[in-house]
Amino acid sequence: MSNADVIVILVVEDDQLIQGVFAETLGDGGFEPAIATSGEEAVALLEGHKGKYRALVTDVNLQGKMDGWEVAQHAREIDPEFPVVYMSGAAAADWASKGVPNSIMLSKPFAPAQLLTAVSNLLNSGTPTT
Amino acid sequence: MSNADVIVILVVEDDQLIQGVFAETLGDGGFEPAIATSGEEAVALLEGHKGKYRALVTDVNLQGKMDGWEVAQHAREIDPEFPVVYMSGAAAADWASKGVPNSIMLSKPFAPAQLLTAVSNLLNSGTPTT
Amino acid sequence: MSNADVIVILVVEDDQLIQGVFAETLGDGGFEPAIATSGEEAVALLEGHKGKYRALVTDVNLQGKMDGWEVAQHAREIDPEFPVVYMSGAAAADWASKGVPNSIMLSKPFAPAQLLTAVSNLLNSGTPTT
Amino acid sequence: MSNADVIVILVVEDDQLIQGVFAETLGDGGFEPAIATSGEEAVALLEGHKGKYRALVTDVNLQGKMDGWEVAQHAREIDPEFPVVYMSGAAAADWASKGVPNSIMLSKPFAPAQLLTAVSNLLNSGTPTT
Amino acid sequence: MSNADVIVILVVEDDQLIQGVFAETLGDGGFEPAIATSGEEAVALLEGHKGKYRALVTDVNLQGKMDGWEVAQHAREIDPEFPVVYMSGAAAADWASKGVPNSIMLSKPFAPAQLLTAVSNLLNSGTPTT
Amino acid sequence: MSNADVIVILVVEDDQLIQGVFAETLGDGGFEPAIATSGEEAVALLEGHKGKYRALVTDVNLQGKMDGWEVAQHAREIDPEFPVVYMSGAAAADWASKGVPNSIMLSKPFAPAQLLTAVSNLLNSGTPTT
Repeated sequence: MSNADVIVILVVEDDQLIQGVFAETLGDGGFEPAIATSGEEAVALLEGHKGKYRALVTDVNLQGKMDGWEVAQHAREIDPEFPVVYMSGAAAADWASKGVPNSIMLSKPFAPAQLLTAVSNLLNSGTPTT
Repeated sequence: MSNADVIVILVVEDDQLIQGVFAETLGDGGFEPAIATSGEEAVALLEGHKGKYRALVTDVNLQGKMDGWEVAQHAREIDPEFPVVYMSGAAAADWASKGVPNSIMLSKPFAPAQLLTAVSNLLNSGTPTT
Repeated sequence: MSNADVIVILVVEDDQLIQGVFAETLGDGGFEPAIATSGEEAVALLEGHKGKYRALVTDVNLQGKMDGWEVAQHAREIDPEFPVVYMSGAAAADWASKGVPNSIMLSKPFAPAQLLTAVSNLLNSGTPTT
Repeated sequence: MSNADVIVILVVEDDQLIQGVFAETLGDGGFEPAIATSGEEAVALLEGHKGKYRALVTDVNLQGKMDGWEVAQHAREIDPEFPVVYMSGAAAADWASKGVPNSIMLSKPFAPAQLLTAVSNLLNSGTPTT
Repeated sequence: MSNADVIVILVVEDDQLIQGVFAETLGDGGFEPAIATSGEEAVALLEGHKGKYRALVTDVNLQGKMDGWEVAQHAREIDPEFPVVYMSGAAAADWASKGVPNSIMLSKPFAPAQLLTAVSNLLNSGTPTT
Repeated sequence: MSNADVIVILVVEDDQLIQGVFAETLGDGGFEPAIATSGEEAVALLEGHKGKYRALVTDVNLQGKMDGWEVAQHAREIDPEFPVVYMSGAAAADWASKGVPNSIMLSKPFAPAQLLTAVSNLLNSGTPTT
């Protein structure tokens, strides 16, 4: 496939080891991972390259001032139907009050198949419109 | 039915005329409406009478400092599975970024049957747990 | 409408007062309620008149030996896609282990609109097949 | 409410008696029914007044050359997320091959509560977007 | 596993290179792909071997007179619950008016994990009946 | 990952050859399979190690007195939201009357991708609560 055929997933994660695990998992499913190491960087990428990223996979607790809840809100302000997957351990219980509608929370730990299924379901359920 | 059998729905709305319309609609469906005229009052009621209210129906734009998005967040902090229905005209487009998961946005104008169906679906879909 | 156009809902309930409330609610929605006062009677009606009843609305705790869980199992053995609504207070927590798939549990107390929405949703979601 | 607050549902039905039943049912739920007596008339109304109608409720078998399947296809070409409810007796089995995605088939006979729930669910599930 | 245990997925695609990609993806998930290079061939296979194929994965634009929309309609006439996945680039926007109910549209480009998840979800959601 | 990060899936299957196939499939998805060879053993493991297992994947027909339907009921009595996947050939038709709500039936034969998707969907859909 040409570059134009790549499905880029924006992963926001500040732990380098875990970045590698997620990148490999997404790559195994045929996705192209792009890594941001802070919420601020993620929002800059989403705003600077509208239409480039097809889904957001974000840790909730991030270095810097912006957490994953805020990143997802920004993503949905840019595109109200943007697929959002959160990942968290202790903060998973806050999803019901801080998450955006039609998002998925993966409670850590989770298996790679869960991440691929979550991203695929969100991408597949979007009704194509003109 | 005795008082204990009443399903109380907390309606947050600052327009007195519209309060009456919603109260009548909910009453027609067999629900017991309780009216709060500001977000602050709604949160005080939810915190002061835990377990009394079974669902929240809130206008997004409210008098006072607290809007409907914040009321819903508070409700979900108290009970992560609390049923939430938002109502809005211009602000309906913000639901994708500011709404809580598993909530329903009713874009104004809407018909009474839509409100009854929204509240009923949220109450019916809650899996009973011990 | 002629008799052939009637949507008959089988209600299993041994309390005469509550029978009346449910019958009135279903009638208000345009359904035709048929009352059975025990599980044994309900199963006899379902087996004796296959195709006559379009949905089952059953209390969980019933006089006699057969409870609502068993009535629903019999209904699904006759027709695997038969719509089932349970109603219960204390036994609602058992739905996760004793209920049948794709059924709805209404925890008592509930409002009439919840019963109409539950029955309508189950009837509407059945894909018509040849 | 002012005229601007009316939720108009386009009903396509060539039997005058049944028109009246559907109009009354929708009116009871707070909707404003608009009747078209042929598929051709319905498509002309949808094309001539874009944004006026909020949902389509159509019989499948219609007088004239255009059936309900075609009316729904036209409605979805104008607006890909337009809510569609079909009604049919014998032709209900064709829904799986001739219906549009995310539509509801009401097999005749059906109760008024089923029609109100079907229309409300389709209107409520539409995510508001900018 | 013996031959009887194979889950055969009918893939309709006229580009030989893409055929290979899809066949490999489905094989990685444990499915057995069968390739048809035109809509006419696909329909002949579905009619000639009823019960052999468990799902249809079809490109929308095909060589020959029959497009993917028509293939899916034929598949649903043979079996009203047949799982259908469409794949398209430019024609994805027509899914809302030309697709069949309960189908999935994969907008090209898509990742292999999306195809496996789409087919698996459709197969898993079919309620087993007698 | 440390041991604490393992997602253990309890597989109940008395055929040693098939045990190996399922264990390999789950392992490929990043899950940790634990095998029980009878329903009695499965229930003892679930009761003896509450919180250890994250999902149940059970054959319906088992050696011993306890079948898969009973194992699932026990699992749901311990945790009303426990994810349940059944696997069966001939008994798949009984799912509608003997299965628990919100479970998935995989009719044999099925592809490995279907098992991974079923388990992932059930784990992902659980709303995290405090």
